[in-house]
Amino acid sequence: MKVGIVGASGYTGGELIRLLLGHPEVEIQYITSRRYIDKYVHTIHPNLRHISNIKFEKFEIDKANNCDLIFLAVPHGASMSLVPSILETGIKVIDLSADFRLEDEAIYNKYYGEHSCPELLKKRVYGLPELYRNEIKNASLVACCGCMATSVILGLAPIINADFVDKKHISADSKIGSSGAGKKFNFATHHPERNNVVRPYKPTGHRHTAEMNQELSKIANEQISIAFSAHGVSMVRGILTTIQVFTNRTVEDRELWKLFRAKYNNEPFVRIIKQKVGNFRLPDPKIVIGSNFCDVGFEIDESMNRIVVLSALDNLIKGASGSAVQSMNIMFGFDETMGLVFPGIHPI
Amino acid sequence: MKVGIVGASGYTGGELIRLLLGHPEVEIQYITSRRYIDKYVHTIHPNLRHISNIKFEKFEIDKANNCDLIFLAVPHGASMSLVPSILETGIKVIDLSADFRLEDEAIYNKYYGEHSCPELLKKRVYGLPELYRNEIKNASLVACCGCMATSVILGLAPIINADFVDKKHISADSKIGSSGAGKKFNFATHHPERNNVVRPYKPTGHRHTAEMNQELSKIANEQISIAFSAHGVSMVRGILTTIQVFTNRTVEDRELWKLFRAKYNNEPFVRIIKQKVGNFRLPDPKIVIGSNFCDVGFEIDESMNRIVVLSALDNLIKGASGSAVQSMNIMFGFDETMGLVFPGIHPI
Amino acid sequence: MKVGIVGASGYTGGELIRLLLGHPEVEIQYITSRRYIDKYVHTIHPNLRHISNIKFEKFEIDKANNCDLIFLAVPHGASMSLVPSILETGIKVIDLSADFRLEDEAIYNKYYGEHSCPELLKKRVYGLPELYRNEIKNASLVACCGCMATSVILGLAPIINADFVDKKHISADSKIGSSGAGKKFNFATHHPERNNVVRPYKPTGHRHTAEMNQELSKIANEQISIAFSAHGVSMVRGILTTIQVFTNRTVEDRELWKLFRAKYNNEPFVRIIKQKVGNFRLPDPKIVIGSNFCDVGFEIDESMNRIVVLSALDNLIKGASGSAVQSMNIMFGFDETMGLVFPGIHPI
Amino acid sequence: MKVGIVGASGYTGGELIRLLLGHPEVEIQYITSRRYIDKYVHTIHPNLRHISNIKFEKFEIDKANNCDLIFLAVPHGASMSLVPSILETGIKVIDLSADFRLEDEAIYNKYYGEHSCPELLKKRVYGLPELYRNEIKNASLVACCGCMATSVILGLAPIINADFVDKKHISADSKIGSSGAGKKFNFATHHPERNNVVRPYKPTGHRHTAEMNQELSKIANEQISIAFSAHGVSMVRGILTTIQVFTNRTVEDRELWKLFRAKYNNEPFVRIIKQKVGNFRLPDPKIVIGSNFCDVGFEIDESMNRIVVLSALDNLIKGASGSAVQSMNIMFGFDETMGLVFPGIHPI
Repeated sequence: MKVGIVGASGYTGGELIRLLLGHPEVEIQYITSRRYIDKYVHTIHPNLRHISNIKFEKFEIDKANNCDLIFLAVPHGASMSLVPSILETGIKVIDLSADFRLEDEAIYNKYYGEHSCPELLKKRVYGLPELYRNEIKNASLVACCGCMATSVILGLAPIINADFVDKKHISADSKIGSSGAGKKFNFATHHPERNNVVRPYKPTGHRHTAEMNQELSKIANEQISIAFSAHGVSMVRGILTTIQVFTNRTVEDRELWKLFRAKYNNEPFVRIIKQKVGNFRLPDPKIVIGSNFCDVGFEIDESMNRIVVLSALDNLIKGASGSAVQSMNIMFGFDETMGLVFPGIHPI
Repeated sequence: MKVGIVGASGYTGGELIRLLLGHPEVEIQYITSRRYIDKYVHTIHPNLRHISNIKFEKFEIDKANNCDLIFLAVPHGASMSLVPSILETGIKVIDLSADFRLEDEAIYNKYYGEHSCPELLKKRVYGLPELYRNEIKNASLVACCGCMATSVILGLAPIINADFVDKKHISADSKIGSSGAGKKFNFATHHPERNNVVRPYKPTGHRHTAEMNQELSKIANEQISIAFSAHGVSMVRGILTTIQVFTNRTVEDRELWKLFRAKYNNEPFVRIIKQKVGNFRLPDPKIVIGSNFCDVGFEIDESMNRIVVLSALDNLIKGASGSAVQSMNIMFGFDETMGLVFPGIHPI
Repeated sequence: MKVGIVGASGYTGGELIRLLLGHPEVEIQYITSRRYIDKYVHTIHPNLRHISNIKFEKFEIDKANNCDLIFLAVPHGASMSLVPSILETGIKVIDLSADFRLEDEAIYNKYYGEHSCPELLKKRVYGLPELYRNEIKNASLVACCGCMATSVILGLAPIINADFVDKKHISADSKIGSSGAGKKFNFATHHPERNNVVRPYKPTGHRHTAEMNQELSKIANEQISIAFSAHGVSMVRGILTTIQVFTNRTVEDRELWKLFRAKYNNEPFVRIIKQKVGNFRLPDPKIVIGSNFCDVGFEIDESMNRIVVLSALDNLIKGASGSAVQSMNIMFGFDETMGLVFPGIHPI
Repeated sequence: MKVGIVGASGYTGGELIRLLLGHPEVEIQYITSRRYIDKYVHTIHPNLRHISNIKFEKFEIDKANNCDLIFLAVPHGASMSLVPSILETGIKVIDLSADFRLEDEAIYNKYYGEHSCPELLKKRVYGLPELYRNEIKNASLVACCGCMATSVILGLAPIINADFVDKKHISADSKIGSSGAGKKFNFATHHPERNNVVRPYKPTGHRHTAEMNQELSKIANEQISIAFSAHGVSMVRGILTTIQVFTNRTVEDRELWKLFRAKYNNEPFVRIIKQKVGNFRLPDPKIVIGSNFCDVGFEIDESMNRIVVLSALDNLIKGASGSAVQSMNIMFGFDETMGLVFPGIHPI
């Protein structure tokens, strides 16, 4: 199949190119960037030197005509101006921005401002294969979920509708590497300022919270409001999310095992990590860096009614481009794992 | 005054020596280590080359006789075997281990095992000057508090007895650098394994929880059980603790400001950090590294009844040796800030 | 083809397993470890969870019988006790240790001590495909080269026999990540001690110097003695080597370009990196992490007769396991790049 | 005494303020910044919160009138436009920029462009106390030396005029943290791009080379041209310089010890580091971070005629602001170590 990547000069764009170059069924037809027209891909993504000689082009809908699918890796707000015209030509779209993640226009407006094609919010599919595999199959527009939202939703999905969960007091604390902020530099991302931090950059009000609440409320069948906080930590890639769940009764390990296994035992890219010993007995982003896995695990507090759920992923792969490729595989009838079965790199 | 430091070869011992060498009223009489007897201090603490030529000695109570104060920087469990005999000679003791932090023997037993001199648990003073300044003045045994406990207690102290706090659902998530584990190396601290982690090494059951609950329950005048999780992050020094507080009504910024100011406006080493802009508008360990400050701040969630409190400190200074020197100043009638008024080092 | 990996629990062993699992023509027949017999591979290499269920076994020559090739990833000194008996059975060997890198027994003795099968030193092939592609084809014993030696040799190979090079005053300064020291932990690798260092751990006398001198002397047709220094820097993976070459006349850019191109234009895994702009205009380990590339580049000093050559690679891939797989491909008639055509991961 | 700091918003300005606040004889009269007029110092230097309430002002020569000394921490090129008018008022100047480091106008022009007050180049004193202590005493204009130049010059000063040194083939390889580039951010300093690098950003042509050659030539009494290369490494503070010296005869350890001791035994801020064991047996920036020490050491290669000299310092302290304060102490007759006797912070 033939694909195009619009806005391919950022970090998620670069990861998409890297992953798709290794995909046996995909031919990258064209990659676009307003800023780097006619430049070789490796002048922007230096890791792709000797790997590809494709050049950036200007995005024009006509050029996209022979593509089966367009990935949009443009900034938030830019996708919605492109999507309608692409869909009109019959080409499918996987959007990595936040523009179509929310299905409720009012909530979109609250978090992001006005939407230019709100009618599409009802038609798009939320691009989390673990929840919407069937819907993705027939979708023409998939909205990839946010990296931190993925970690929170996959962590809570197995238990959010369990009777023992105190649904009013769930909190989630994400720690993310510097690549999560993308390629745009400023004083906050200046290495002497950004290194060695534990920066609580969004203790409240992070936009991904809207996605989390949307998806978890659906599963729980009641309104969920996650108490979410986001922190930047001193690394480049990866997310660890720690979720605090109070319970209204004692819960046993095997009860949780059962729920997590029921949800994830057949999932190709979610691993339940819960060992008794070892440096990596619980999820840690270090172990998923470079892979499409989301590792989830949990621990029960014996001294109070409380569960801690942990969730780790590579923000640029399972949290963005890898997840997009996974959705593509589903949409086009390939094996869901095609082009994604590489392990993480350790040590890194 | 003359002091001795027992167990001076570890990281907190090294920091104690460094701080006390700069203290205008203190003469370090002797430093001990079982392993490094007769070695110069700088063979173990290489940053002290050309700063001091003191040598490690074997601990003997007789040698301590002309000391006014002994700091114990020995491993947990070793302090309690030394303290009674030192106190007997009339020498005061500041203990940096966990041996005397808990006042309830039963709770000590639960978290640490049997105690050899439980009668002292009732007599020691918990070494957090912000809570026990008056008691420390006349104490003969001060038990310095744990580094993560300090961050949690100082973060919550201003509000824990406020009417709006839901005291049943407080969680705290600490992120700590690798020096927190001390000088003992193992495979878990091996650089290729420890770097780039966000390691949830104690999602539940961390021993410092006992201290937190003890102190916060006292202030709140009811039983508090913190849902505490500890993570190792990719840096050497520093702690950030993020505390999630659900509230049973809407709370306003100025209400919290008032409570934090009331508690900390006269505190020399607690800063309330809450700015509108800047890389460091909220507490971040990066800014306190090398200082005795604990920075606290908060943010109110406008979308739900919830407060996030943030607390940052240098685990080896305000979380250990700096706090110990602060207690010493109080015990011996010096200005509380003496020898501790250095700022953090930025950028680091 | 069927392969075995002896000593597969270390970092190079883990990388070998990871790479070979992705190789279309290889079946890993068995992996051995004295310490982890019967353990699943992912208990030791946690990045391989859900990727492989192979278990560690005890090494026994009989079990190796149906292998076509054995990789030895055992510590230096252990290989030479295994190699003769394996070769006797007709199985080929690729050895990642230092045991067979030197062809001169006397030099081996000087750097490493006595050799138990010195007669094999004359028969083995030095496993650097860029120099010994033809010899590797028919080799039964390949000795993979050291990671820092690879970077120095590939950096100098294009120019070492040029007339303009002052062969008596060449120095090379390598900066290597912590994974270069392997999995064995000690106080020197303890994270608080190892992070943020630039540690000159071998300013002189590094064992890899023997390999460098051996290979460069051959190309130059005269005795070369590299002034080599090795430093540990604050990262996990990667090497940058900076080579200072004094020249006895002015040299022009295009002259060097010509020599580097002549040597490397057809090399699948050596890239000449020399751009005018960009963050990565010259070799930097950051860009090769996770790949089998060695990036080389150079800069001419206009103020004196001097060239600086730069060389970067991933010490565990091109510097060890990737290079071993490349040699395997050559030995067994596969395309040399098979299983190795993945780009580096950026940003990391 | 009263001092002013012009251009006090950068990293070296921040360090100057921090150091001078702790200096018993100095009162900071005023600090200037064009950009942050009327802002509190801690809005720019957040580590100084609760330490100082001084505000940035606009620089005006009249306001400086009651200062005894002005430190200039402005960008290269800006100092020379300020110095003449300040000197005219009789106020002494310590300049941290590169504007007055070179005494030869022609060389200045070659490296930096035209100079607006070249006559001052002959009158200024090069601010390296270890070389120019006597001249600094009576100087009215001191030009602080570059951070990497300091490390190279102090490393070579003891031996550069020794008979055994091959003065034609000396190379120096510096590794520096990200703070060395100052506060100005760009894509090259963006954390995801800058972290984990070993970036050869100036393999040749670094401007500090001019200073090194100037000073070393003077000591050697012949023209020295250092083959200098500069690299950015993955840390915030610190420099390690590795100097390769070929010798024209065998040199013994004690011969070098004698030369280094002769030069540095009475120096308060140069330590000779050369131990047989330990993590820090040779200079390493990790151990000097936060201090005004420059650690130097050496190792003799037993296999060839070669010495490796190592030199480590904190680029913002001994490489800039600490050195400036040291010069101030000398100029104003204070004890040279006043306000500078703090050890480094370990571990960091």
